[in-house]
Amino acid sequence: MKILVLNSGSSSLKYQLFEMPNEQALCTGLVDRIGLEHSSITHKTFFKGKESKHQVELAIPDHEGALLRVTELLKDPKVGVLKDNTEIEAIGHRVVHGGEQFAATTLITEEVKAKIKGLFALAPLHNPPNYLGITVAERVFPQAKQVAVFDTAFHQSMPALAYRYALPKSMYTDLGIRAYGFHGTSHQYVSKKASEYLNNSKAKIITIHLGNGCSMTAVDSGKSVDTSMGLGPMGGLVMGTRAGDIDPSIIFHLINERGFSAQEVNDILNKKSGLLGLSGLSDMRDVKNAITEGSPDAKLAYELYAYRIQKYIGAFAAVLKGLDAIVFTAGVGENDADMREAVCKNMDFFGIMLDTKLNRAGNKNIREVNKSSSAVKILVIPTNEELEIGQQTFELIRK
Amino acid sequence: MKILVLNSGSSSLKYQLFEMPNEQALCTGLVDRIGLEHSSITHKTFFKGKESKHQVELAIPDHEGALLRVTELLKDPKVGVLKDNTEIEAIGHRVVHGGEQFAATTLITEEVKAKIKGLFALAPLHNPPNYLGITVAERVFPQAKQVAVFDTAFHQSMPALAYRYALPKSMYTDLGIRAYGFHGTSHQYVSKKASEYLNNSKAKIITIHLGNGCSMTAVDSGKSVDTSMGLGPMGGLVMGTRAGDIDPSIIFHLINERGFSAQEVNDILNKKSGLLGLSGLSDMRDVKNAITEGSPDAKLAYELYAYRIQKYIGAFAAVLKGLDAIVFTAGVGENDADMREAVCKNMDFFGIMLDTKLNRAGNKNIREVNKSSSAVKILVIPTNEELEIGQQTFELIRK
Repeated sequence: MKILVLNSGSSSLKYQLFEMPNEQALCTGLVDRIGLEHSSITHKTFFKGKESKHQVELAIPDHEGALLRVTELLKDPKVGVLKDNTEIEAIGHRVVHGGEQFAATTLITEEVKAKIKGLFALAPLHNPPNYLGITVAERVFPQAKQVAVFDTAFHQSMPALAYRYALPKSMYTDLGIRAYGFHGTSHQYVSKKASEYLNNSKAKIITIHLGNGCSMTAVDSGKSVDTSMGLGPMGGLVMGTRAGDIDPSIIFHLINERGFSAQEVNDILNKKSGLLGLSGLSDMRDVKNAITEGSPDAKLAYELYAYRIQKYIGAFAAVLKGLDAIVFTAGVGENDADMREAVCKNMDFFGIMLDTKLNRAGNKNIREVNKSSSAVKILVIPTNEELEIGQQTFELIRK
Repeated sequence: MKILVLNSGSSSLKYQLFEMPNEQALCTGLVDRIGLEHSSITHKTFFKGKESKHQVELAIPDHEGALLRVTELLKDPKVGVLKDNTEIEAIGHRVVHGGEQFAATTLITEEVKAKIKGLFALAPLHNPPNYLGITVAERVFPQAKQVAVFDTAFHQSMPALAYRYALPKSMYTDLGIRAYGFHGTSHQYVSKKASEYLNNSKAKIITIHLGNGCSMTAVDSGKSVDTSMGLGPMGGLVMGTRAGDIDPSIIFHLINERGFSAQEVNDILNKKSGLLGLSGLSDMRDVKNAITEGSPDAKLAYELYAYRIQKYIGAFAAVLKGLDAIVFTAGVGENDADMREAVCKNMDFFGIMLDTKLNRAGNKNIREVNKSSSAVKILVIPTNEELEIGQQTFELIRK
């Protein structure tokens, strides 16, 4: 059975086609700069273990045009993998915010679409393009089942102690202000892999997702019990351009005493902070090069990024009342051995002892990089949010 | 040598008179509702171990009037302890914000006063009345040395990793936006007492100050290395009416999507949140009574207050790379055995094991309430910010 996974952003459309249940990725691609100049499609196919890549620059006015172009590529005699649209039995849509309404992957109906629309206020940047992707897919693939997989769903198992803020109660009951958490699909995927690896369904695990966005989750017996992001994807860890945790009084100080508007402060915290704010560079590889060249700002940015992760490991060990494993995943987590070393440094109070040699032996699979004497396992697990979305979609429609 | 300690608030003046170096408190008092209706003075004297209390309601138009009335009481033949103003050799002033300029207790000069004034933007609610208290004391006690003891000074030992935010660098270099931390006098006082008790000057200690405001500090070898409050006294732990840590995106959500003004949100976070927001009650004793009466909101407020402390214990254990002792102090910390029990519950991963019987055996002195098998000492130490200010003032002028 062929399942298409779609991740629809404001000016982009990511897709991946899976053959299920054997989890084979047939092709993957990105339509970029939709509705802008120089829009393009990058399309990769995987055939008998061989990857081939095709890139075209062409005018793509909107998301419907994007998905139609993707469909043509999927059916192209040379680079395609389909004969007909109808071969796709289901489409799994990434939806960022599911609020409290969606604690699991859900078959999309008119009622579900109305609820996703009702969550626009909570995720004004993400839910509208996700919603658009759904409506476009319904028109282009009318025969396929449409499924929504929510970034927040995995975290709906959090107890009130983790998701409530010490705010007036009506902020929660009337306005839905609580911690929702994000990157749920990734945290769920790697924590499941870790439990399997540990052969322990009751394991206490801290998953550390370090990509463009960064977040950490405390996972107890397969369930998210606390996470570093809250109402939106701004708080918690230091990220490429996002500040993560700050004292809220900074916002009022900037507005009341320094003449900033609320919008300016919001932009600064989202787009000009994090690694970029501290060092002038938002990409971790650039930050590391700058450290080699002697930049003290880049060094502080790198160390603060690690320091914040260490503090969350401590906090989540308190939440979990113990710790069996920590898991590094996503771009920086999987590829930056130095960062893993910085995070695990002097953490033996927590039973965390990295094997520096194993840590540097790169391979693409799940691997254990702790000393044999370490009480806590340190795992590196490549995340695969698209596959997790494909699997969950398959599981749902198979029923 | 007689030293007067003054804590000047916007409509209040607290005072305490010490005989030094023997640390004897001669009298203490509070002028309340200065410039308002029903202003009053509560004055207590301690004579040969006997406390006597005097309360008068009278019109007190301003801080100068307040200090003059206090002076009359100090010299009153019946309730006084002085013959003449000149017996007071020094006055120690509590000043909330010392910025980066003041890392220690400081003799007040015109230059120092200008710097304290320069910090008004960082502490708009606290530094102006503190400053007023200094100028009034200079007029009423012209012969006395005036000394400033800063709430932030103890935290000036924090490393950049603890005080910097992941914000644009210029926010720190040009605007002074960083974590300063507060309650420094209390954290310093109890951590010093704890080090003495442990007979270990290199101890790794977490001090937990739970009063009207609440904060925690990681203390390594007598120095503050991280603390839960930041630029202002709003973040970190859940407090009576303050929210403590929240996702900053909540602020923008309320302003952009829900029509609140920045000022309204600031007021909510400072005055309508914390225990009050969650339960409708800001005083911990009222919250506990409401729990007894079956209020689920009060129960959540109480548990969230403890949960947040547990997470900071974990985070600060990661910062300290170990843990020798935790210290409970201030109103709730000293008196609420249930809260200490809630905080220490299931924390044996950290080596924290409370002895529930010792925990309930109240006395007013420093005491150890852990099991003998606990790797981490759990101490209850009554704080005494006034005495610490008096001591630091005495030490400074003795030189």
